[in-house]
Amino acid sequence: MAEPAHRPVSTRGRYLRKRKRTRERLLHAAKQVMAETGAEAATIAEIAAAAEVSPGTFYNYFQTREEILDAVAASFVEEFRRVMDAIQRAVDDPAERIAIAIRLFLERVRDDRLWGWFMARYASSLPILRDQTREIIRERIIADGLRRRRFRLPSTRAIGDLIAGTSVTALRSILEGRAPLEIATEVAELVLRGLGVPLGDAHRIANRPIPPLLLSTTQDQTRLRPTGYRLPEKTL
Amino acid sequence: MAEPAHRPVSTRGRYLRKRKRTRERLLHAAKQVMAETGAEAATIAEIAAAAEVSPGTFYNYFQTREEILDAVAASFVEEFRRVMDAIQRAVDDPAERIAIAIRLFLERVRDDRLWGWFMARYASSLPILRDQTREIIRERIIADGLRRRRFRLPSTRAIGDLIAGTSVTALRSILEGRAPLEIATEVAELVLRGLGVPLGDAHRIANRPIPPLLLSTTQDQTRLRPTGYRLPEKTL
Repeated sequence: MAEPAHRPVSTRGRYLRKRKRTRERLLHAAKQVMAETGAEAATIAEIAAAAEVSPGTFYNYFQTREEILDAVAASFVEEFRRVMDAIQRAVDDPAERIAIAIRLFLERVRDDRLWGWFMARYASSLPILRDQTREIIRERIIADGLRRRRFRLPSTRAIGDLIAGTSVTALRSILEGRAPLEIATEVAELVLRGLGVPLGDAHRIANRPIPPLLLSTTQDQTRLRPTGYRLPEKTL
Repeated sequence: MAEPAHRPVSTRGRYLRKRKRTRERLLHAAKQVMAETGAEAATIAEIAAAAEVSPGTFYNYFQTREEILDAVAASFVEEFRRVMDAIQRAVDDPAERIAIAIRLFLERVRDDRLWGWFMARYASSLPILRDQTREIIRERIIADGLRRRRFRLPSTRAIGDLIAGTSVTALRSILEGRAPLEIATEVAELVLRGLGVPLGDAHRIANRPIPPLLLSTTQDQTRLRPTGYRLPEKTL
């Protein structure tokens, strides 16, 4: 809905803030409904109800179900990119970077099970989420690790399946109580081995304490807060 | 429905054969509906319709939706066990056994995409299917490989996530056309590395021709035929 041109500035500011809050509420509701019931079952009516807005209000923000699913996926990609930025600033070794990324990914379920279920269900099936996170890992970590001869690979074609497949499946094992959170370091170690890191190095790197990480405090951070993302406290 | 005691033997045989066929039809229909629409959306009415029987007939075979899902999972576990039997008879090295199991798992989509979609969706989420296939791999291959010092592992807690996670995620990449069928050997190679097999061995073993495998010709085989399981022709 276009905002009337004659509105005074302070009203306009309030209007924009309210509009942003409602959009966040809808995104959060979509994540919740999808994590709990599955994307196939997540209807616009259900998402609107979970956000406590009318279906009419929903259509002021998103035209279709697909549009809000894409927005949800894009918001997770944005979070992932910011965490990877923080890891890149704090750590130089590509092997340690990937190990930390995997450990943080798994350890996040301690604070945010809704996020965990969302990832367990969609990290490999929502195209934007799957393809863009893989692209970030490939561009920033794998390419660099190959250049610096830290990784040795027959080709990079199956690397995304190794990293995402092992991590997301382990996430589900943790969520369902079939494995303790402590497997996070072992998962990182097995993936490092797959990337060609020697056994001793893989073990050492996967078990190294995670250094302090600083997430950038841009507007993005405010925008992402409603999803409840928190790094483990000891690492902030 | 109990069969009347006075029925003559030949009629009884016909009755049992027909009952078995209808049960198979229902199982096949359940697999199809689940692979295509997702378990959440697979209702008894839809499964009965796909099998071209009435919902009333459905209840002569299965009491609940969960009961038929469990039967579907159990039939895949049975198939998996028979393939593993054949691999164990043909090959001694635990590393080669796991590599062949992974390659056959991925290459099967060439003949049977319905099966592929079923596995991509449920191999990690249907408890009977997930837990029993992992148990078979752990008991028969991992334990043996550790005893014979073929594998080196920090613990076995994350091994199921590595093997199943990487394989099932790669299966989805192949089904969706994001990766060629040829990644099967690379997937096997990466998993072998994860298990602690040295890089050179892992590469050689993953690329070795698959020897002829003989599936046992028990009653089970007949029973399983309707699901369309076929090993790649060149390996039979």
